[in-house]
Formats: sequence, structure tokens, C-alpha cells
Amino acid sequence: MTTSSQLTPVKWENNALVLLDQTKLPVETIYLTLTTAEEVWAAIRHLQVRGAPAIGMAAAYGLYLGVRNSEAATTEALIAEVNQKAEYLGSSRPTAVNLFWALDRIKARVQRDAGKDVVQLKAAVLDEALAIQKEDAEVCRTIGENLLTLLEDGMGVLTHCNPGALATAAYGTATAPFYLAKERGWDLKVFADETRPVLQGARLTAYELQQAGIDVTLICDNMAAMVMSQGKVQAVIVGTDRVAANGDVANKIGTYGVAVLAKAHGIPFYVAAPLSSIDLETATGAQIPIEERPGEEITHGLGKQVAPDDIKVYNPAFDVTPAAYITAIVTETGIFKPEEIAKSKA
Amino acid sequence: MTTSSQLTPVKWENNALVLLDQTKLPVETIYLTLTTAEEVWAAIRHLQVRGAPAIGMAAAYGLYLGVRNSEAATTEALIAEVNQKAEYLGSSRPTAVNLFWALDRIKARVQRDAGKDVVQLKAAVLDEALAIQKEDAEVCRTIGENLLTLLEDGMGVLTHCNPGALATAAYGTATAPFYLAKERGWDLKVFADETRPVLQGARLTAYELQQAGIDVTLICDNMAAMVMSQGKVQAVIVGTDRVAANGDVANKIGTYGVAVLAKAHGIPFYVAAPLSSIDLETATGAQIPIEERPGEEITHGLGKQVAPDDIKVYNPAFDVTPAAYITAIVTETGIFKPEEIAKSKA
Repeated sequence: MTTSSQLTPVKWENNALVLLDQTKLPVETIYLTLTTAEEVWAAIRHLQVRGAPAIGMAAAYGLYLGVRNSEAATTEALIAEVNQKAEYLGSSRPTAVNLFWALDRIKARVQRDAGKDVVQLKAAVLDEALAIQKEDAEVCRTIGENLLTLLEDGMGVLTHCNPGALATAAYGTATAPFYLAKERGWDLKVFADETRPVLQGARLTAYELQQAGIDVTLICDNMAAMVMSQGKVQAVIVGTDRVAANGDVANKIGTYGVAVLAKAHGIPFYVAAPLSSIDLETATGAQIPIEERPGEEITHGLGKQVAPDDIKVYNPAFDVTPAAYITAIVTETGIFKPEEIAKSKA
Repeated sequence: MTTSSQLTPVKWENNALVLLDQTKLPVETIYLTLTTAEEVWAAIRHLQVRGAPAIGMAAAYGLYLGVRNSEAATTEALIAEVNQKAEYLGSSRPTAVNLFWALDRIKARVQRDAGKDVVQLKAAVLDEALAIQKEDAEVCRTIGENLLTLLEDGMGVLTHCNPGALATAAYGTATAPFYLAKERGWDLKVFADETRPVLQGARLTAYELQQAGIDVTLICDNMAAMVMSQGKVQAVIVGTDRVAANGDVANKIGTYGVAVLAKAHGIPFYVAAPLSSIDLETATGAQIPIEERPGEEITHGLGKQVAPDDIKVYNPAFDVTPAAYITAIVTETGIFKPEEIAKSKA
């Protein structure tokens, strides 16, 4: 499904889980070959795999690794073992919602297949894990195809944070059109905001696009306005953590500022949003809680202390971009005006 | 002239030059006591003093230190020595315009005073150095008083980079109203952009305001938009490297983006500009050359590598804010609409 030039953070290969060790990025590209649930537990715990979809996929394969050599004689015994290993893997990163979603999906599958024998049930676990990955790649690819209809060969496109392949099965969300454009021989020029304080843009987006041979230029967040005023970008594409029913979008801190700047420069601002991120239960962005993170991320996060001791810091991890600043929200079901985002799930 | 709570980066004390070692900031506050021109040369070369006015002052005192023990028997011999030591000190940082401005001013003074004797001439060198510092402090204080008329007790104010006391004789330019407000017992809440890539806001502005007991909060550059949308700031004040005749303003990268965001949020945007920065020979900002600096400042500048090897980087050191985004330019001669900045020198 993916092209050879694209990094795949999670893959099932030769009966093992092969993970790109994201703690070594962007300096080293090292793949880990994991063959036990315990190894997968440790890889998730130590952030060697990150990004909600990627964590879910890793846990799903980990669950298969945990039961494939089971000596359970009966279906019931094997199902009990699946549930037990799922609970174990869930303890690796208890705040990762997608981790539980993936494990629950496999638990439901073995319940559905309870009439099968032990060998068939083991195969069903792997089949479900593979299906989770395949579906995620399809969602991302479809979002990318929809976004690509909004772009043209030769354009400059600015992105923020890492809505990238490294977090998903393939393609990423906001980065998906960049990979598809590359497949088609287009020449897009991507500008990646470094994305302070944690630098996902520098460490991850710049890295994965460079690895795929895509023309990417790294800038500091505060250079986006100048890049826009110089006519270097004709579109902005970002990802999202949650879309409210009115089309307000929560995403990594800095997204809102980029949206305001895009509007001031007459540049369209697109949000790549899988349906799983669209939360019609949340009426507006004002209801989305904004996590504040420790000031040390800003003052000490980069290898040396860059601000005085005991300085007061404000470090919101996310911001909310009001629908009025968003040209379109693009899902796997189509392209929507923000105020009509409910139609994406209709 | 300065208040006790304010840091003084350059001072003449007990017949020696006392410099705040800025290479140790923001972690350590260490003062160096220098008694020879050679020590001053080394301090300028090694960036222990920085900021155009501060470098000029340090060099001026260094010139006095270089000739005060001269055994020259005649005025002519002493003037020759002044010129020779000035040339020597100028070699410490040949790109620093203010360094030569200060040295040339002392050379002109001794030419003017050529009728005096050797002892009087040595005193004239010190007198001129002290005058340079006193005048800079007066300019900054007056800019601060003018800016203060645009603010009110209790306001939040955002600033960018380090237009601060650490670069000047005292007060700084854009920071001057913060010190004056503190003297008056006002409670301003200052937000300091960290100012990537070199982090002058985190390392210097946050440090000097904290040392002075001013309420300062450090944020990443990409958080300014959110701080504005939350109603936390009622004014933006920045410094400048050069103001063009039409009121366009060159300043540290990121300034233009802050100006666009301020306008979008209905927040006034003020530029603190000593007359020495107003260049009526430059018609518009388009004629101001923008220095591009090495990508390593972004990828490796913070203690560890944060982007992949060989990544393409765009690193403009400055940007230009068009006059249309500027509410007022504030000099030591008054408050001016950007399009009327020529009146500041009339």
C-alpha cells in the first residue's frame, strides 16, 4: 500500500513487528524487530512508537505476539489469554485512547469468532491487527487524495507539528498529499514549522519528508509570516486532535496563529481530519480543555537551560482555531466547510 | 540615573570597567572588572558584552583604560596613542557599527581638545566615554516616558527579542516603560516571546525583567496569538534595527508576524526607536537587506541536534514590518505615526 520511499513506523514483516525507533530521531534511523508482547509493552512505554494510530497498531500486533505461542487447548482459554494480554499491553501507556480502542477491537473480534478453533482464533487476532493498519492507511490515503484536489503542481505548502506518516499506518493526515504528489511526480515545496516547544516539526516532519525525497524546508515558527508575505506558500495544511461540531479545530499550539496569518495573507487554510477526530458531542472549541504542560519543556527541553531559574512560563500544549479562519476541513468522506462538518459523518 | 533594581551591563566603577558577562546568562550573574584595553578587546570579541550601544560604551571605556597610564610627554603623542588604541579596539568586532561610532567620537573629542595638556586630554577621553553612556541612558529613559503615556497600570504587554537594558546604558528601548512603570508602582504584566532561533527573549529579556522584579511570563513565539485571543495583552512593544523613511520597520525575525497578529486582534503595536535607528536615506523596507544566517542556529543551536542531517533550512535573521501594521513609532523626540516618522528628526 505504501510507496518504497515512505517511512513506515509500524510494520508486520517475517512474522515479527518491525518498529522505527522514534526516540532515536532525527539523528538515527533504527528499526527494532520485536517478537514478544513484553518487548512491545516496553517499546510503547519508552515512546519508541508514538502517535495515536501507530500506538494502537503496535499494541494490536503485540497482542498477537502475546498469544501466538499460547498452549491454550480450548477457545475459551485462548480468549481469556487474549483478554489478559490486552490488559497487560494497556498498562504500557494508560492515557493513550487509541491503544485501548485497538485492543478492544481485537477483544471484540475474538468474541465474535468464539465458534472457531484455537488455531483459527490466533489467525483472527493477526487478521484484525492487519485490518486496523490497512484501514488507517486507507483513511490517510483518501484524505490525501481529497486534499490533493485543492493543490497544484509547483505550489508551496506550509504545515505545523507532525500530522505525518510517523504517527499513522502510512501517509499521515496533513502530510498525505505531499506523499501522493511525490508519487505523481509533482514538485511541491513544503515548509515545516519547527513547532516549539517539543519541535515535532523539526524532529519528525522534516525528517520523514526528507527521507521520502520530498522538497522540505525547515523554519522557526516565527518565520511563517515572512514566508507567507514573500509568496512562498499558496496553502497551509495542518492536522487536528479534535474538531468540534461548529467546525472549531483544536490542534498543536501555534496552529491558531498560523491560521490568522494565512487569512491575513489570503492563503487557504486546510485541516486534515479523519472522522475519528470529529467530535459532534462537543458544540464549540470553547468546550475543549487546553492542557498546560510544564514550563521546563520551554526552559530546559533542548539540551541546555535557556531561561533563568524560576521564570514564570505559560505553556499551553494546544490551541483552538475558530471555524472562521478555516477554509475547509478534509476527511476521508470529502471536503467540508467547517460549519458543515457534521455532514462528514452523515 | 538607573534604579537599584535594574541590571547595568556596562558601568564605570572605582576606576575600572565593570561588565556583566552576558555569555553566562541566564544561568549565572557574573560581573567582570576590567582594567586594561586588552581585557576589553577580549570581552567584546568573546561576546561578553553585546547590544550595539553597550558595545560602543565598553569600547569607549576600553579606550580610556588603554591610554590612562600612557607615558606620552606631548599632546600629539597622546593623540597618536588614542588613535592607535582605537584601531586596536575596533579590531575586536569589526562588523559592529556602534563600536566605531563610539571610538570615532572619542577621536574627534581629543582632536577638538588638542590645545589641552596630556593630563587634561586623558580626562577628556574618560569624560567622553561617560557622556556616551549618560546620553544613551537619557535617550532610553525618554523613549520609555513617551511609551508610558500609551500604557495604563494593570495592562498586559507583549514584547519580542531583547530590546532591553542589557543592550543599552540603561532601561533598554522597548523595555524602558516596563522599568519606569515599576518605579511608579504600576503592575504591568509582560509577556516575553522566547524569540527563536537564538532565544534572546528567553535568555535576556525574561532574565533582566525577572532580575528587576517585573512581572514577566515567558512564552514560545507560537503562543503569542493565543495570549492575544485570551485578552492577556493590551499592547505590543518591540525595538528596531532600522526604520525606513516610509515608516517600515526592520527588526528581529518574528516581529512582522506579531504585528499581523496584533492587528487581527485589535491590539496596538508600538515600535521603540532611538533617532539613531531612523534612516531617512532608506525609502522603504524593501530596500533593507535581510541577512540569512546559518541553518545550524536552528538545527543545532540549543545543546543538541533537533533536525535531521542536511535538512534544508531558511533562517532569515530579520523581517520587515510594513508601516500599515504599526500604530506608532516612539522616539526620544516624541510619538509618531509611521508615515510621519521624518518629523521625529525635524
